[in-house]
Amino acid sequence: MILVSRQEHFNAAHKLYNPGWSKEKNSAVFGPCANENWHGHNFNLIVTVCGDPDPETGFVVDLKKLSSLIRDKVIDAVDHKNLNVDVPFMQGKMASTENLAIEIWKILEPLIPEITSFGKLHSIKLYETPRNYVEYFGPAHHKA
Amino acid sequence: MILVSRQEHFNAAHKLYNPGWSKEKNSAVFGPCANENWHGHNFNLIVTVCGDPDPETGFVVDLKKLSSLIRDKVIDAVDHKNLNVDVPFMQGKMASTENLAIEIWKILEPLIPEITSFGKLHSIKLYETPRNYVEYFGPAHHKA
Amino acid sequence: MILVSRQEHFNAAHKLYNPGWSKEKNSAVFGPCANENWHGHNFNLIVTVCGDPDPETGFVVDLKKLSSLIRDKVIDAVDHKNLNVDVPFMQGKMASTENLAIEIWKILEPLIPEITSFGKLHSIKLYETPRNYVEYFGPAHHKA
Amino acid sequence: MILVSRQEHFNAAHKLYNPGWSKEKNSAVFGPCANENWHGHNFNLIVTVCGDPDPETGFVVDLKKLSSLIRDKVIDAVDHKNLNVDVPFMQGKMASTENLAIEIWKILEPLIPEITSFGKLHSIKLYETPRNYVEYFGPAHHKA
Amino acid sequence: MILVSRQEHFNAAHKLYNPGWSKEKNSAVFGPCANENWHGHNFNLIVTVCGDPDPETGFVVDLKKLSSLIRDKVIDAVDHKNLNVDVPFMQGKMASTENLAIEIWKILEPLIPEITSFGKLHSIKLYETPRNYVEYFGPAHHKA
Amino acid sequence: MILVSRQEHFNAAHKLYNPGWSKEKNSAVFGPCANENWHGHNFNLIVTVCGDPDPETGFVVDLKKLSSLIRDKVIDAVDHKNLNVDVPFMQGKMASTENLAIEIWKILEPLIPEITSFGKLHSIKLYETPRNYVEYFGPAHHKA
Repeated sequence: MILVSRQEHFNAAHKLYNPGWSKEKNSAVFGPCANENWHGHNFNLIVTVCGDPDPETGFVVDLKKLSSLIRDKVIDAVDHKNLNVDVPFMQGKMASTENLAIEIWKILEPLIPEITSFGKLHSIKLYETPRNYVEYFGPAHHKA
Repeated sequence: MILVSRQEHFNAAHKLYNPGWSKEKNSAVFGPCANENWHGHNFNLIVTVCGDPDPETGFVVDLKKLSSLIRDKVIDAVDHKNLNVDVPFMQGKMASTENLAIEIWKILEPLIPEITSFGKLHSIKLYETPRNYVEYFGPAHHKA
Repeated sequence: MILVSRQEHFNAAHKLYNPGWSKEKNSAVFGPCANENWHGHNFNLIVTVCGDPDPETGFVVDLKKLSSLIRDKVIDAVDHKNLNVDVPFMQGKMASTENLAIEIWKILEPLIPEITSFGKLHSIKLYETPRNYVEYFGPAHHKA
Repeated sequence: MILVSRQEHFNAAHKLYNPGWSKEKNSAVFGPCANENWHGHNFNLIVTVCGDPDPETGFVVDLKKLSSLIRDKVIDAVDHKNLNVDVPFMQGKMASTENLAIEIWKILEPLIPEITSFGKLHSIKLYETPRNYVEYFGPAHHKA
Repeated sequence: MILVSRQEHFNAAHKLYNPGWSKEKNSAVFGPCANENWHGHNFNLIVTVCGDPDPETGFVVDLKKLSSLIRDKVIDAVDHKNLNVDVPFMQGKMASTENLAIEIWKILEPLIPEITSFGKLHSIKLYETPRNYVEYFGPAHHKA
Repeated sequence: MILVSRQEHFNAAHKLYNPGWSKEKNSAVFGPCANENWHGHNFNLIVTVCGDPDPETGFVVDLKKLSSLIRDKVIDAVDHKNLNVDVPFMQGKMASTENLAIEIWKILEPLIPEITSFGKLHSIKLYETPRNYVEYFGPAHHKA
């Protein structure tokens, strides 16, 4: 088994705001991230597929196909968008990096078999800033 | 003469939208950057001071003082903010990286003498993304 | 389970020198790293917490709280310090990146529950240079 | 157990071309990567060793020795070379990043005991570009 | 005057080989860069335009238009290509980074007026590796 | 005229301490940088040469020769050293990044003609950290 990764990026606005709480509690918990007028980030997204290389191509997955899939199914939905307002799959969810990575997994995991029969989705790594990032390995993954 | 630089960063939302134009013209000119629901970036700001080193310290400017000045006068005004809505010095201006860099120059240039008598402001470099950035050398600078 | 990471940095001096060995043996084993007058590095420290997101915040851990914890308990003890001389938790230990990462785990692991009830410490990654780094997963972790 | 990593780099030419296929099929599958006149990359190679630190040195492995081993056994064979033409261990294989990482594992894995008795090879990470990379953990590794 | 920059990238093969010299002299002068079987790089190209912002857009140049221009006129000609063999504008020239940057200037300089009336080409910066790069300011530029 | 740059790196310890001042004044001015037990950095050094390319090689300067010159004359003197104690050319000077860059210029400027007849030294850029850096253009350079 080998891991193969492709990095893409997008720019988006968001705020961290729990609509079940008062404005004061949101400010107390989320600080400047609760600014009602939004802030934003340059997100970096790394999608990793695991499998054994196809002997005919040497590829677990063709990275041009993986790049196209990520752009068509994820980047087009979030780039230059407001994560809280514009993105259907984030409706009703806190716009945290954790939740965004989990939703991206749900979108891509069933689609990887369409572009390779040699690999499956291994992880979603999402950088909100160069200093803050998350990594998700799917619902079946539990720490040893 | 030697140049001394300090990098800081901030996260902000903005949109590119000329209020004197129709929504259609804004979309045609600015594309996804005109999204009325905003998008955002992790900005990197590099402030450069030029001068000769103080013989007693070896410094053109104390970078701890320069960092504090940038944070107090610029970063606090723009970090986790909406550049179009929340930032007084951007009111009435297009929220382009060019205009933001020019306004940051106007704020910092008169304040550098408060933290050093050995240097003056040389340039403002502002990265909107790792691939898009501007550099401003002040109103007195014209290309040879 | 999802991993959430925060990067901080510090600058420190150190040397690699086993006091039980002669100066000659130290030079033979550690080369220029044994220079008795010290050398130093810009260290980058990445602390990773694993858990499930709190449904009310979307966070496994509030990264502002994690950043404050790392700064208060680790960075303040090592930044602009001599790892061999100034840092109590490195006394009597070789000042290798491996040992420093292990000691940082020991400090932070019992403190993570104070800032989140949804996650626990997963790993300490420590860059001595951009080309040399270590990653530690705690004493309970053994390779499959 | 702790992981210790060393990054090296090399520049090489290659093409993706299956000699059992027609030129048309190669172009259809590999696109511009099949250009018969070659293209190339700055590869970054990260070699990771796992183990417990030697109490006398604080090292799982001396990174100067690991760096020398990687340069002598891998970098000298691939740097400023054509991966398809000049590199004996890639003969008869598709010159994909996956296959190159697997071959580098085979070279280094038996040699790590020559430079440390405290660790063994854990992984080979190979960046073809900053956006495309693979990671290999050896033939014994299967996903949980 | 303000400088506005856009970074693009491409992957290419080349060799440094003066056809007027013997193979021995090429090897003596260029070392491994003269490998007749080629080597290659991930090049990063930064194109900088200078001017005053258009008051209606806040832009010296629309970076989407600049990006498209660079891709259409430069990247398409060099990406996944052999600089010595496949690139018409490098024929008869040594395939050094210096010469490549100068030729890219010649291509782009007359085309910038087609995408902006507020700026002109200021410089071409070209990274062959993260450690080796050149910067060209046009034929009219001489050092003070 | 074209600029050609080579980046090298070194790791060193230093402190900022004016021996003509009291310990208290040093602490007040330099803060943690005055720690008498030293701290340190991974320095990145970029040396830039300007000139016109040699028509026979396409080079302003052979970057292998420039790299060797920098390593022999600068890196060997400062790498894994204490800038205040071990480095002859820093004796009697404040160990600031400014002063270190100026001394590196003095060393390299007269030696560039030994490796090229097509270029001369243009600048020394020195990163103390990724956020703090200086750039020096020689004693003849004054801001317009």
